[in-house]
Amino acid sequence: MSSKSANITRRLVVSTLATLPMLAARLTTAAQAQASENQLSSWNDGPAKQAILDFVRVTTDQASSNFVPPSERIATFDQDGTLWVEHPMYTQVMYCLERVPEVVEQKPELKNVAPFKTVLSGDREAIAKLSLRDLEEILAATLTGMPVEEFEAEAKKWIETARHPRWKRPYTDLVYPPMLEVLRFLRDNGYKTFIVTGGGQDFVRVYAQQVYGIPPEQVVGTAAGTKYGYDKEGKPFLTKEPKLLLNDNDAGKPEGIHMMIGRRPHAAFGNSTGDREMLEWTGAGDGARLKMLVLHDDAAREYAYGPAQGLPDSKVGTFTSALYDEAKKDGWTVISMKNDWKRVFSFDQ
Amino acid sequence: MSSKSANITRRLVVSTLATLPMLAARLTTAAQAQASENQLSSWNDGPAKQAILDFVRVTTDQASSNFVPPSERIATFDQDGTLWVEHPMYTQVMYCLERVPEVVEQKPELKNVAPFKTVLSGDREAIAKLSLRDLEEILAATLTGMPVEEFEAEAKKWIETARHPRWKRPYTDLVYPPMLEVLRFLRDNGYKTFIVTGGGQDFVRVYAQQVYGIPPEQVVGTAAGTKYGYDKEGKPFLTKEPKLLLNDNDAGKPEGIHMMIGRRPHAAFGNSTGDREMLEWTGAGDGARLKMLVLHDDAAREYAYGPAQGLPDSKVGTFTSALYDEAKKDGWTVISMKNDWKRVFSFDQ
Repeated sequence: MSSKSANITRRLVVSTLATLPMLAARLTTAAQAQASENQLSSWNDGPAKQAILDFVRVTTDQASSNFVPPSERIATFDQDGTLWVEHPMYTQVMYCLERVPEVVEQKPELKNVAPFKTVLSGDREAIAKLSLRDLEEILAATLTGMPVEEFEAEAKKWIETARHPRWKRPYTDLVYPPMLEVLRFLRDNGYKTFIVTGGGQDFVRVYAQQVYGIPPEQVVGTAAGTKYGYDKEGKPFLTKEPKLLLNDNDAGKPEGIHMMIGRRPHAAFGNSTGDREMLEWTGAGDGARLKMLVLHDDAAREYAYGPAQGLPDSKVGTFTSALYDEAKKDGWTVISMKNDWKRVFSFDQ
Repeated sequence: MSSKSANITRRLVVSTLATLPMLAARLTTAAQAQASENQLSSWNDGPAKQAILDFVRVTTDQASSNFVPPSERIATFDQDGTLWVEHPMYTQVMYCLERVPEVVEQKPELKNVAPFKTVLSGDREAIAKLSLRDLEEILAATLTGMPVEEFEAEAKKWIETARHPRWKRPYTDLVYPPMLEVLRFLRDNGYKTFIVTGGGQDFVRVYAQQVYGIPPEQVVGTAAGTKYGYDKEGKPFLTKEPKLLLNDNDAGKPEGIHMMIGRRPHAAFGNSTGDREMLEWTGAGDGARLKMLVLHDDAAREYAYGPAQGLPDSKVGTFTSALYDEAKKDGWTVISMKNDWKRVFSFDQ
C-alpha cells in the first residue's frame, strides 16, 4: 500500500469510527422512541400522545435545556375520572352509602333520621337528590370512629365484592389502561408517581398499590385526623376521627402536594375543575411541565358529560367552559377519550 | 473402573454437587454478614449494633418467619438528638431566634414587644428563660406569612452560614456518622427511610436530601398549612400560614406517620419522650420490629443529659426514667453514645 493510500485509508477509518458513537446514539434514540411508542399502545397517534412522548423525551435527555434530574421527577394524578370511572357517583360515596345499614345497626338511633333514613329507603331518586351536606354527614358517620386497621379491612372487603351498576364488574376493573400505561411509562423514565385525589386518602390507599402500582405513602387525598390511644391491654391503636385535616380538592390540591410531597410536580393529570389549581401550580414552574385533562366525550364506551362540550353538567367531575378556556390559553393538553384512546377499559375489544 | 467404584464416585459427585448450593449460600451469607459489619464501621460491637444486624438479617431473609416484603420495609427516624445534635437548643429554634431582627425590620411594631424585645436584647440568660408560649410566638412570626419558595431560600441560606456555638461548625456537620450508616444500611436492604421529626417539616426538607439522602416527601414533621393564591400577574403561589396542621411530637408522631406514610414502620429510632408513641406504635406490629433510643451519655464528645442517667434534665430531648423503664420492659434497645459509637462526629479521631 502506498503511503498516500494508507493515509486515505487511515482517514476513512478515523472518520468512520468518529461517526460511530453518533450513529449508535441515533440508533439508541430511535429504538428508545419505538419502545416509548409501544408503551403507549392504547393511545392513538395525536397531540395528546405526542405531548406525553415529547415531555418525557426532553425532561430525561441530559442534553436538553429542559432536563430534570431523576431525584426531582414528580408526577401527580387525580383519581376519579382521571384514572378510573367516576360515574354515576364517586366510588367512595358508593362505599359509604352501602355501609349505612351496618352503621345504623350499630347506632339504631340513626334509623329514622335523615339522611340515613333516605339511604335505607333504597329510593334511588331520593338518594340522588341528597345534598352535599347530607353526603358529608354520611361520610363522617361511615368513615370515622373505628381503628385504622378495621377501616382498612372493611374497605378492602368492599372493594373486592362491590360491583359497578352499569358494567356489573368490580370498580377496580374500571381503570383506564391508557392511563396505566402513562403511569408505567413515567415510572420507567424515573418519575415518582403520586395520586392526588379529592377522595379519601385511607380509602384509595387500600388498593392503590395493587391497581396502580402506587404505594400508600404516594397517595395524597382528603384526610381526616386520627387519635392515638391504648386498649385495655395497653396496646396502642389509632382511631379515625371526624376532624378534617386536608380537603384535597381545588386549592387543597397544591396545598396537599406541598404538605405531603414538598415540591412542585413536573407533570399533572386531572379531569375537572377540582384539578384546576393543581395544573396551574404545576404549570407555573420553570422548564417543561406536562398539564393534561381527560375529557369524558365517549358516551358509547364510557360517559359524555360537562358543559365544555355542550353536554349535560354532572354532579361529579365538572369540566366547565371556563376550565376548557384556561386549558387552551395556558397550553394544557385535553385528552379526548373518544379520539385519543384505542380502548377505555381492558375488556374493550 | 469397577461398577462399584463408579457408583461410589457418582454418589460422591452427586452428594458434593448437592451441597454446593448450600455451600455457596453459606459463603454468600458469610460475605454478606461481613459486608454488613463493614457498613456499620462507626459502631462498637455490642447489643445495639447486634440488634440492627439481627433485625436486617431476619426481615430480609426469605426463609425467615419474620421476612418483610421489600415494598413494606419502612423505617422512621426522629431527627433532633437522634440524627444530629439538639443541644443547647433545637437547630430550628436557633434559626427562628436569629431571624427575629429581620422580622422586626419588616414589622417595627414588634421591636419593643415581648418576646421579640428579649431576643433583640441579646441577653442569653433571658433568652434561655423564654417560655414555650414565647417560643411559639417567635416561631409563628418567623416561619409564616411568606411564599414557600422564599422560606426555602431563606432557610437554605441560613443553614449554609450558621454555626453551632460550641463547635463553630455548620449544623449539618453535627450529624452522627453511626446513624448515617444505619440509614444507608437499611436503604441498601430495601428499607425506605423517613424522618419523623417534631421540627418543622419545611425546614428539615431544605437539607434532608443532601445531609441524610432523604427526599422531601419522606420528611414528616410539624407542619403548618399553606394558602393558595395568585399574584398581580395571575401567577399562583403558596403562602405559609400560622395554622397548625400536624404537631409531630408524642402521639402526633404515629398520627403523622398514618397521615403521611399510611403504614406502620418496622423500625423506629428516637431519643426522647417525644418519640415514645412512635416506638410503641412500631413495636405493636407483628413480627420483628426494631425500636431504638439514643442515650446522650457522652459529655466529652457530645453531651450528657436526662434523668434516666441521674443527669440534669434538659429543655430538649427529655429521656426520663419512665421512658427508660418502658424501653427495658418492651425490649427497645438503648444506644449508648459513649459505649456503642466509635465516633460521634465525622471530625472525631
